[in-house]
Amino acid sequence: MLTLVIYDITDDDLRLRVARFLRSRGLKRVQKSAFIGPLTSSERTDLVAGLRRLVRGHEKINIQIYPLTEASYRRRVVIGTELTYEDEEGVIT
Amino acid sequence: MLTLVIYDITDDDLRLRVARFLRSRGLKRVQKSAFIGPLTSSERTDLVAGLRRLVRGHEKINIQIYPLTEASYRRRVVIGTELTYEDEEGVIT
Repeated sequence: MLTLVIYDITDDDLRLRVARFLRSRGLKRVQKSAFIGPLTSSERTDLVAGLRRLVRGHEKINIQIYPLTEASYRRRVVIGTELTYEDEEGVIT
Repeated sequence: MLTLVIYDITDDDLRLRVARFLRSRGLKRVQKSAFIGPLTSSERTDLVAGLRRLVRGHEKINIQIYPLTEASYRRRVVIGTELTYEDEEGVIT
């Protein structure tokens, strides 16, 4: 099922690690702090566990993971331009 | 239907106006750049039209609007703490 992950993370280094982790799980960046991708139910469980491990001990973290139906995704509306996201290493992603 | 709105907006003033507009439509802030709330289909159409008007002429904008089923919302996972969001006027929201 499609999974949307959005996050508010104050710490720059941790935010970068979260982005890399999400990319490593096959999710695609759709905004600066939003990734989306298809995951099985067990992959989503693993993703949540991995995120919890990654942010353990950190404060000022909020990550939200939403399973999305295909219908929800098809009916989304995007306003504006596709932004190009540069991670903190200066690599265009 | 529940509607999730996430945005990347570089301009501080415009970002604030978008947040206020979303709040005026009854959506609730769930992250710094994410609002959620129940909207009828015609309210969602109006919301999209209003957002398009608001950002017209601006660059570096990306706003995504997702209709969410109740099941998707119930199955969401939230990691971390509820953050307190202060808008640029210094008002706790």
